[in-house]
Amino acid sequence: MKEKFALGLDVGGTNARAAVVDARGRILASHKLPLTDRAPEAVALVLGTCAREALRQAQLSIEDCAGAGAGVAGQIDAQTDRILVAPNLGWRDVEFRPVLSKALGTSVSLGNDLSVAALGESRAGAARGYDSAVLVFVGSGVGSGLVLNGRLYTGATGVAGEVGHVKVRPGGRLCGCGERGCLEAYAGGHNLGRRAAEAMTDGRTTRLQVPEGLAPTARMLEAARAAGDALSEELLGDAADLVGGAAADVVTLLNPNVLILGGGVLEGSRWMRERVEDVIRAQTSRTALSPLLIVSPALGDDAGVIGAAFLALPTS
Amino acid sequence: MKEKFALGLDVGGTNARAAVVDARGRILASHKLPLTDRAPEAVALVLGTCAREALRQAQLSIEDCAGAGAGVAGQIDAQTDRILVAPNLGWRDVEFRPVLSKALGTSVSLGNDLSVAALGESRAGAARGYDSAVLVFVGSGVGSGLVLNGRLYTGATGVAGEVGHVKVRPGGRLCGCGERGCLEAYAGGHNLGRRAAEAMTDGRTTRLQVPEGLAPTARMLEAARAAGDALSEELLGDAADLVGGAAADVVTLLNPNVLILGGGVLEGSRWMRERVEDVIRAQTSRTALSPLLIVSPALGDDAGVIGAAFLALPTS
Repeated sequence: MKEKFALGLDVGGTNARAAVVDARGRILASHKLPLTDRAPEAVALVLGTCAREALRQAQLSIEDCAGAGAGVAGQIDAQTDRILVAPNLGWRDVEFRPVLSKALGTSVSLGNDLSVAALGESRAGAARGYDSAVLVFVGSGVGSGLVLNGRLYTGATGVAGEVGHVKVRPGGRLCGCGERGCLEAYAGGHNLGRRAAEAMTDGRTTRLQVPEGLAPTARMLEAARAAGDALSEELLGDAADLVGGAAADVVTLLNPNVLILGGGVLEGSRWMRERVEDVIRAQTSRTALSPLLIVSPALGDDAGVIGAAFLALPTS
Repeated sequence: MKEKFALGLDVGGTNARAAVVDARGRILASHKLPLTDRAPEAVALVLGTCAREALRQAQLSIEDCAGAGAGVAGQIDAQTDRILVAPNLGWRDVEFRPVLSKALGTSVSLGNDLSVAALGESRAGAARGYDSAVLVFVGSGVGSGLVLNGRLYTGATGVAGEVGHVKVRPGGRLCGCGERGCLEAYAGGHNLGRRAAEAMTDGRTTRLQVPEGLAPTARMLEAARAAGDALSEELLGDAADLVGGAAADVVTLLNPNVLILGGGVLEGSRWMRERVEDVIRAQTSRTALSPLLIVSPALGDDAGVIGAAFLALPTS
């Protein structure tokens, strides 16, 4: 029995979610609650409540589970298992695993949110049946998850996959990470909006409609681009060229079976997504391109809890 | 007994070498012969002769070996085990493994030369004791080998590690691979020489001394640079910036414990090598840089045969 189920936890900036997941990646039950207090102990208590409710709905107890996995949007040190930084939660160097383990009453494995999404898509979603998959997400930030030879690859210290921080324009725009020229500083949703706002402040003519008090979003840029706005097309196009170029280099280097392209920015602009794919096809080494499948995520918001549960489930 | 020794074979463009290697990566005996006929059957026979001589010197027989591994400078299809292309041998889509297996009288595993070098350095050389190592070689060509989580990683179809073919200047110089803008087209030894020759044809003033009938080499560029030649410094510096930038992106993405930098071009110019390291330190994401060791290869020319033997030896 213990081998068949696990708890998958998704710790976002605004919500916490727990799901009971079986070995084939199916969600038996899940429960979600808003996070009002982001202190680690408070978050652990909310996750515990979600987990108990999900278990109750699934008519299972914690003893029926092989353990729990939790995906966190942040960097986790593989050696100490400490959360080095989780910007959405405002955490820096937090020892969350023992706190969460105590709240749940079972062992816990931690993973980066995109790593667990890649694991979920790889075992039960868009890359199921393939050994090697790279997931690239362009949302408010830019990141990736790597499943290589059937296993999640997180690097020597747990921070592998930071494609958002490869230097596409060395010495260029300042990134949220404190370094300059990162892919995320040009193509992440927050920064795309900032670049548009900067251009407007500089007096660029644009049809971009930004409601009073809000920052421009990728969706607003896409709407303006579709209506013929040059600035919006320039920014989305530049971001697409940079994302496509970086993804092409990752494919040339890693020769995965599947590249999963997702995230809010790409979902919000089909035009940008198609340009990203065009750039990938133009710039990837032929030998790595020919076997490559480029797909969208299949699990949607469930990838996080399913992949997190796989952290606790033995390979089936 | 079978678990303790293996044959490691190195198939270069001009020489063939076989070594008897133990499970700790020590060479008991080795033998090298020139390759005059590059037909696959002829190469297999020469390797067979080398192997028998190495075994004789080691006072072992082929039955004492777990099998043989062979490193080839080329692309090997992981699914069919065919050698897709091996430029130095003039091979294209060659089924070499059964031919070699017959000539040796034992099972054979094939590997790309830089992949096996990475495996050798990882288990018995510069990255011994570490789980994840990336080897980047800048010689006449540019390439890499990846050992991730203790295992050689060769990708979905066996062509992972082609860092020489990431597009550093999309649409730029034509590369030997038929594509444009590859790192190798700017920083590989052959192309560095060609860039110097082109600049001289274009009438650039230079102190570069190129003997009649020869093409400029990286060593000649380094000698001229050391004597104050601006063109040579420009070319070696540009190559260093591109190699360093690409290596930084690989480290940011893969978070290895160790980066092994080698190859004739870097060995021939300490100035260029130092600049490559400076660029890596400037452009790698801080979290991936802080645990990173940057080293030189420790096994020299032996990395090929030692790593090839590890293809046939179970993990110790």
